[in-house]
Amino acid sequence: MSHTGSPTKSQTDNKTTLIKGGKIVTADRSYDADILIADGKIAAIGHDLQGDTTIDVHGCLIMPGGIDPHTHLEMPFMGTHSTDDFDSGTAAALAGGTTMVVDFVLPSPEGNLLEALQEWFQKAGKARTDYSFHMAVTGWSERCYNEMPEVVARGVNTFKHFMAYKGALMVNDDEMFASFRRCAEIGAMPLVHAENGDIVAQLQQNLLAAGNTGPEAHSYSRPPEVEGEATNRAIMIADQAGVPLYVVHVSCEQAHEAIRRARQKGMRVYGEPLIQHLTLDESEYQNKNWDYAARRVMSPPFRDKVNQDGLWAGLSAGSLQCVATDHCAFTTEQKRHGVGNFTKIPNGTAGLEERLPVLWTTGVRTGRLTENEFVAVTSTNAAKILNIYPRKGAVLEGSDADLVIWDPNATKTISAKTQHSAIDYSVFEGMKVTGLPRMTISGGHVAYAQGKVLAEPGAGKFVERAPNAPQQQALSVWKEVVAPRKVERDPALMPIGV
Amino acid sequence: MSHTGSPTKSQTDNKTTLIKGGKIVTADRSYDADILIADGKIAAIGHDLQGDTTIDVHGCLIMPGGIDPHTHLEMPFMGTHSTDDFDSGTAAALAGGTTMVVDFVLPSPEGNLLEALQEWFQKAGKARTDYSFHMAVTGWSERCYNEMPEVVARGVNTFKHFMAYKGALMVNDDEMFASFRRCAEIGAMPLVHAENGDIVAQLQQNLLAAGNTGPEAHSYSRPPEVEGEATNRAIMIADQAGVPLYVVHVSCEQAHEAIRRARQKGMRVYGEPLIQHLTLDESEYQNKNWDYAARRVMSPPFRDKVNQDGLWAGLSAGSLQCVATDHCAFTTEQKRHGVGNFTKIPNGTAGLEERLPVLWTTGVRTGRLTENEFVAVTSTNAAKILNIYPRKGAVLEGSDADLVIWDPNATKTISAKTQHSAIDYSVFEGMKVTGLPRMTISGGHVAYAQGKVLAEPGAGKFVERAPNAPQQQALSVWKEVVAPRKVERDPALMPIGV
Amino acid sequence: MSHTGSPTKSQTDNKTTLIKGGKIVTADRSYDADILIADGKIAAIGHDLQGDTTIDVHGCLIMPGGIDPHTHLEMPFMGTHSTDDFDSGTAAALAGGTTMVVDFVLPSPEGNLLEALQEWFQKAGKARTDYSFHMAVTGWSERCYNEMPEVVARGVNTFKHFMAYKGALMVNDDEMFASFRRCAEIGAMPLVHAENGDIVAQLQQNLLAAGNTGPEAHSYSRPPEVEGEATNRAIMIADQAGVPLYVVHVSCEQAHEAIRRARQKGMRVYGEPLIQHLTLDESEYQNKNWDYAARRVMSPPFRDKVNQDGLWAGLSAGSLQCVATDHCAFTTEQKRHGVGNFTKIPNGTAGLEERLPVLWTTGVRTGRLTENEFVAVTSTNAAKILNIYPRKGAVLEGSDADLVIWDPNATKTISAKTQHSAIDYSVFEGMKVTGLPRMTISGGHVAYAQGKVLAEPGAGKFVERAPNAPQQQALSVWKEVVAPRKVERDPALMPIGV
Amino acid sequence: MSHTGSPTKSQTDNKTTLIKGGKIVTADRSYDADILIADGKIAAIGHDLQGDTTIDVHGCLIMPGGIDPHTHLEMPFMGTHSTDDFDSGTAAALAGGTTMVVDFVLPSPEGNLLEALQEWFQKAGKARTDYSFHMAVTGWSERCYNEMPEVVARGVNTFKHFMAYKGALMVNDDEMFASFRRCAEIGAMPLVHAENGDIVAQLQQNLLAAGNTGPEAHSYSRPPEVEGEATNRAIMIADQAGVPLYVVHVSCEQAHEAIRRARQKGMRVYGEPLIQHLTLDESEYQNKNWDYAARRVMSPPFRDKVNQDGLWAGLSAGSLQCVATDHCAFTTEQKRHGVGNFTKIPNGTAGLEERLPVLWTTGVRTGRLTENEFVAVTSTNAAKILNIYPRKGAVLEGSDADLVIWDPNATKTISAKTQHSAIDYSVFEGMKVTGLPRMTISGGHVAYAQGKVLAEPGAGKFVERAPNAPQQQALSVWKEVVAPRKVERDPALMPIGV
Repeated sequence: MSHTGSPTKSQTDNKTTLIKGGKIVTADRSYDADILIADGKIAAIGHDLQGDTTIDVHGCLIMPGGIDPHTHLEMPFMGTHSTDDFDSGTAAALAGGTTMVVDFVLPSPEGNLLEALQEWFQKAGKARTDYSFHMAVTGWSERCYNEMPEVVARGVNTFKHFMAYKGALMVNDDEMFASFRRCAEIGAMPLVHAENGDIVAQLQQNLLAAGNTGPEAHSYSRPPEVEGEATNRAIMIADQAGVPLYVVHVSCEQAHEAIRRARQKGMRVYGEPLIQHLTLDESEYQNKNWDYAARRVMSPPFRDKVNQDGLWAGLSAGSLQCVATDHCAFTTEQKRHGVGNFTKIPNGTAGLEERLPVLWTTGVRTGRLTENEFVAVTSTNAAKILNIYPRKGAVLEGSDADLVIWDPNATKTISAKTQHSAIDYSVFEGMKVTGLPRMTISGGHVAYAQGKVLAEPGAGKFVERAPNAPQQQALSVWKEVVAPRKVERDPALMPIGV
Repeated sequence: MSHTGSPTKSQTDNKTTLIKGGKIVTADRSYDADILIADGKIAAIGHDLQGDTTIDVHGCLIMPGGIDPHTHLEMPFMGTHSTDDFDSGTAAALAGGTTMVVDFVLPSPEGNLLEALQEWFQKAGKARTDYSFHMAVTGWSERCYNEMPEVVARGVNTFKHFMAYKGALMVNDDEMFASFRRCAEIGAMPLVHAENGDIVAQLQQNLLAAGNTGPEAHSYSRPPEVEGEATNRAIMIADQAGVPLYVVHVSCEQAHEAIRRARQKGMRVYGEPLIQHLTLDESEYQNKNWDYAARRVMSPPFRDKVNQDGLWAGLSAGSLQCVATDHCAFTTEQKRHGVGNFTKIPNGTAGLEERLPVLWTTGVRTGRLTENEFVAVTSTNAAKILNIYPRKGAVLEGSDADLVIWDPNATKTISAKTQHSAIDYSVFEGMKVTGLPRMTISGGHVAYAQGKVLAEPGAGKFVERAPNAPQQQALSVWKEVVAPRKVERDPALMPIGV
Repeated sequence: MSHTGSPTKSQTDNKTTLIKGGKIVTADRSYDADILIADGKIAAIGHDLQGDTTIDVHGCLIMPGGIDPHTHLEMPFMGTHSTDDFDSGTAAALAGGTTMVVDFVLPSPEGNLLEALQEWFQKAGKARTDYSFHMAVTGWSERCYNEMPEVVARGVNTFKHFMAYKGALMVNDDEMFASFRRCAEIGAMPLVHAENGDIVAQLQQNLLAAGNTGPEAHSYSRPPEVEGEATNRAIMIADQAGVPLYVVHVSCEQAHEAIRRARQKGMRVYGEPLIQHLTLDESEYQNKNWDYAARRVMSPPFRDKVNQDGLWAGLSAGSLQCVATDHCAFTTEQKRHGVGNFTKIPNGTAGLEERLPVLWTTGVRTGRLTENEFVAVTSTNAAKILNIYPRKGAVLEGSDADLVIWDPNATKTISAKTQHSAIDYSVFEGMKVTGLPRMTISGGHVAYAQGKVLAEPGAGKFVERAPNAPQQQALSVWKEVVAPRKVERDPALMPIGV
Repeated sequence: MSHTGSPTKSQTDNKTTLIKGGKIVTADRSYDADILIADGKIAAIGHDLQGDTTIDVHGCLIMPGGIDPHTHLEMPFMGTHSTDDFDSGTAAALAGGTTMVVDFVLPSPEGNLLEALQEWFQKAGKARTDYSFHMAVTGWSERCYNEMPEVVARGVNTFKHFMAYKGALMVNDDEMFASFRRCAEIGAMPLVHAENGDIVAQLQQNLLAAGNTGPEAHSYSRPPEVEGEATNRAIMIADQAGVPLYVVHVSCEQAHEAIRRARQKGMRVYGEPLIQHLTLDESEYQNKNWDYAARRVMSPPFRDKVNQDGLWAGLSAGSLQCVATDHCAFTTEQKRHGVGNFTKIPNGTAGLEERLPVLWTTGVRTGRLTENEFVAVTSTNAAKILNIYPRKGAVLEGSDADLVIWDPNATKTISAKTQHSAIDYSVFEGMKVTGLPRMTISGGHVAYAQGKVLAEPGAGKFVERAPNAPQQQALSVWKEVVAPRKVERDPALMPIGV
């Protein structure tokens, strides 16, 4: 690969860039063609194109930049924050071929959605990639009800509901139903973190009482059963409310099975496995080193190989759609907050830099996924489900020029020493990967190349997402078709004198 | 059939009765033998036996008397009661071949279990058959926690939890978990009415708001989805709490599927379909006559044929165990309380007199069940699950002499005009049945014969049920075997200085 | 819609056509743009394009022309042929918005594949649309083994296996395995007609012997069980042979469930429901009019509503991929061959003209499918699976200009009187549809417009399909990853003296 | 335990024996009582009984003697026989608490059933326990058809069908259907060995061709897929033929799942896991020692832990009914016949002596099974399914006095050195078991005690089994209820002039 001209400087508004010599790989096909970028967008795809600057990507694949639909950057936590913020987090993203993150806005249970949104806009100001938000609904109130359409108007069409974290973020069934119904009215889609928070809380107490205070008890307190149950429940509530549903971090067969059953009933339910759950397993928590185990603490916890096989099959079968990270990075120091009490270990692991290389290595190179399916689950499906396709997730004329130039033969061994995340370890430490971004282009600019992040903080832009995605419209029609009908009764057949 | 001597009078304590010439049909076999009854118990089974009185039952089958594990007699309702009390209800039971009912004690949410139990003992004083109780847990409190072992000490080893009836009987997930854990400690088994009460309440409001006020809206407000979801949830909670679970009135495939999944994980979960759900379907609510439809209002509502097929298969496959009635009889007058607002129609239908004949007709005569399976699902399985086998549910020496003398060829057309229930209609009106009790023997006495109930009110006795049934003991052992184990960590591998 | 210029004449090689004012609807998005056609291909998509001829399609959708992956035109049958040949059959196709058919070449069991292929090329000479072939393997021989790569070399990458039609087309398990293995070697994909032919033959005999000679016995002889079983078996054989599998005419939940199980194991299995099975049910065979019932005889037969619901859900869930017709049209006269013996009723129904309008009406207008899913299941998915995407099934620059101009508001009542098929009835007679092709463009030419088929016989071309589709390549890699490994044993641990 | 008198001598016809001080454990209950034996049968059960001889079994459980429904004693194999014959095999049985074996008669494919039966009667003459037979159907012919009722008349009501062992025992689908139909006519039940023999044969060839000649290749050639498929197929054929079905040696979830699906459709299908499959796993074949691995070769082969968990759950859930051994013992010398070619390793392992202790240890002591379920799956269920209950499988007055006196606290380490089987190794070598027979009583005689087999060869008797078990009768009724009905058509609605 050689750069003709000086890409990072030449990308001023009125200069064009030509990506030349690569194979374009999208969710639906692979083909050789060049790409001309102008004004941050794909201006043309074809042969014999001319650009002011030419980047030769011979031997590489050109794919839509990764979209991570699930991150928590600078997430508030006990007076401090998760350590990767929109600066370091999106730097890691770019280094891993990801050009857009969707982060979660966490308002208070009182429903100050707009205030919280404002706060997140501020945090995200230093993002190096484009970004969007999901809005959490952490309680139910008239204020929340009223602000939801305002949130949609500002470009956020998804609302997240935590069924876990009792006493903090958790909402109960009637709150969920009310919020889901509101989503149906305004064309927004609900998301759920599906674990039964009541039962988790009780199991936590029981484990602590029994002296099970170590990180392994974190996984004992959140068995697949509590996730499967909550997933099944959220699906039922969405069905009754008449909305699609997106289930974040599906980690186990029990949850996946609930999703499959729903889809086989014709429901519009989506499932998102994490790259961590696809590749790391529960034996990690049995590590004799406390730090090692605690660094892997996240919710849901890692599962066993049987569950992993199920997730992989779901990706190729289409019952699961998006591979995310739930990137929420805490340092070892922060993790140690939970020494002596596993419930105080901050939940979260990092993955923004590793998602694509690890998935390529364990998925595409083994034949579990085609390269096109790889694009679908890392980018295109998220764009479609979140209703920003084909602006994002596509290599089409008019699409944003968010691209990853992928070298399928490049290798490295993952190490905290070389990562872009701000934390001091990697849960993938020592894993050898084959398939790496040679370059990442974001908004038409070379944002990562030759191992260096070139995009500046603040280079990223907010991506508005409109409500009423096609699948949601279709569902609304179907729900009307099958709505219950009143039986009209002749007054003569009504009880006498009543 | 002829009586030698005068059965109803001769059955004093020191006289014996011989049931002669019949075929004994139990849950595990069918064979010709005579039965000698003494002191209210089966004293001998065989040939060439002698009794003070002989009842010739040639051409009939002799089966253990039916046990209905689910009734609501004289259940409090808006200042009045369900119309069949322990007198008329057990009269209907005897006329239908049932010799024991298990009724539900409903304490207040504050947990006055013992007071409520006392109240139910009083009501049941007029029972003509033996009876036992399930205790409802309708809230959670220290009082409840403390009284539960007392309840067990008084012979009640089962605790019922309503996941529906929000604002009244409903308990939420952490209350259920706490109560289930308490059950595990004291060797008792939880029961659940599984419907998601939050969602039902919301659907009710939506339907009323949309002008859907008729009885059909009752079924719209309680779709199979809300039952399936709650069943799945209750199973998860029981699994985490380490107790068996008994799911009452399983009406649909979604609930049944949850039970099957649980059993296929090795869990001890039991399911009880009602004779109504096996034979009547949702089209009943579409009846143009309001009274007709309202009389069928119960929870869960009747379902469709596909769900019925599933229930039938479950009975022969063993994934469902007991056929009950949820007998809760309201008169047409009481039903009319809900004219203009379906949520005010009292929930409940009658079935004590019809359970056995309807099941024989639609089950045994069609080949869906063997006669031995018939006994299992109407009597023996309930006795085993409720831990009173073989005192009840068996034809063995030493068992209570609770027997139904069954004429497999007798026929009748079910009609409210000839029924023993106190209400003015029958949901089985007009159904022609083949297979009827010729005589019912309760506690060694002829309690029903020649169409007449002979047992007097008060003839029945309370049946104590001990905790720690074998299946529950086994489960406790297994839960200990698979309990999570603490990882022992060398202090050297703990974080430094913490 | 108005034509500027004279489209049917202007379409000479060096003239261009502009399709203007419509909304392009593809499998992945919907957007407004114009399409420029040149040399039979899509030359440009965008705005402000200029063409020699302009067709204004305002108010219409522009979709990739339908691909019917399953037809039997001029199929040999008892000395005669199915009545629709490549002329009338493709005329019906065009009138229904379908621009390509894939027909089945039926060689003799001796394996004269190339001869048969030649014969089919001749028959297809009069096709008005593009066409391709599946090659049937109706026996197993060295000749067959040797000719298979030749068939692939001539552009046919799929091999069909009949598990039914014992004594005629049926192959048994080791023949299937051998053929599937051969497919794996040469990068071809097997297809199956999945019904257990042995059991069907026995049931036919039993029914005839019992006097069940009418058309309804056809459906009795082919219950869902025989289809589900065979589907499951074919899937296992494909799994062991290491090839993807395409199951034609999936009609029932039992088959669909087998496919879902396979996909959930990570297998590459595809299922094709027919428009007939999605919309017509088994009650048709109970019609008192013999002709009426016999006209509906096809294999598998129509099923019940529960099975239909399953198929619909499969289309939106992605567990089923392609809606086909199995178009095989016999006249009433031909059907009457089976009067007195249902096994002699020629199997087959027509659907080429109705497939798209019926699916739009019952699928898109009810909200069961989005318009994009409609395109996927009628065109794009078939193109991908059959490895001709994006030449076919796409609206992309460079794709063949096979387009249907769809008027979503046009209505008609289906009637044999107005159909293009050569037969004298329609199984959809009287169905009112909304959504119809206003115009069909095939190879850049207006092939159907204003109710008239304009393309001439012979206008269609053969479409070569290459082997080694991406999903097949991926599967081969995976199969190597998980291949069984030999245990290397030290000679010292081998039996002594052996 | 002490013997009063001399049990082994006193058991002449007119002396009685009293088993005193034990707890009787049956499939349905556990209770303290004594048992009086007279004339080889249970004469009385109760307290205060008197016998000529008294055996004090204080501290022990008294259970129905084990019934092993699946053995191959002195099975012909390449000019020799499996090494345990009816003498050593039944000695091992008695030492393990089993008092009856059901062995397989293997006629030639020509259908000389009666000759073969005669041969097996001769072999079984030296049995020390009671025995019965299953008749194999290894081909289909008029002779077979005609002899089947004769076989039933001689007391054999079950017919086994091998779907594997191509070229030897295997039958194909229409042979199976024909035989199953014949079973339906004569009230007999078919059994199947369910593996797809065609595919196994092909996989064997492929493995050998690839140099995979070791014992591990045996398991590679028979993956769960081929068993699951065949099970599913056999079930479908039984369903269409209208008979119950008993699936021998169910080893994997895929087969078990097929059984569950069938049962959930209301079918009468039974599944038999082996004690080997419940406790030993596929890693055994990876042993570096050839002999070690080869000794474990049986069909189906051992599976993984996930499959084992499924089987265990099936036993408690009731979807699997009987734990058997498929006892077919070959010496190491015989196993070495397959050095260099795994397909020549004789298939089979021993288990008659270990079945009960291993199941008690791994099942009852872990809480996976109750003691009553233990009796059900080792004895009672087999007796019921094979229609010899309550003569066998019960502790009831009149039942055969086949009892095992079980010491739940006795322990031993299994070793070939101390076993009664004639072979030179044990697949359970080194396993420590808790729970052992202290004494085995067969036909009223002490047949095993104090570690010694006391019953003489020839002490066992043939047990006739009548056709038309209750479950089969019920199924026949149901099949008539749902049989397809001819549509009666008015001649006016038939085609004109036909």
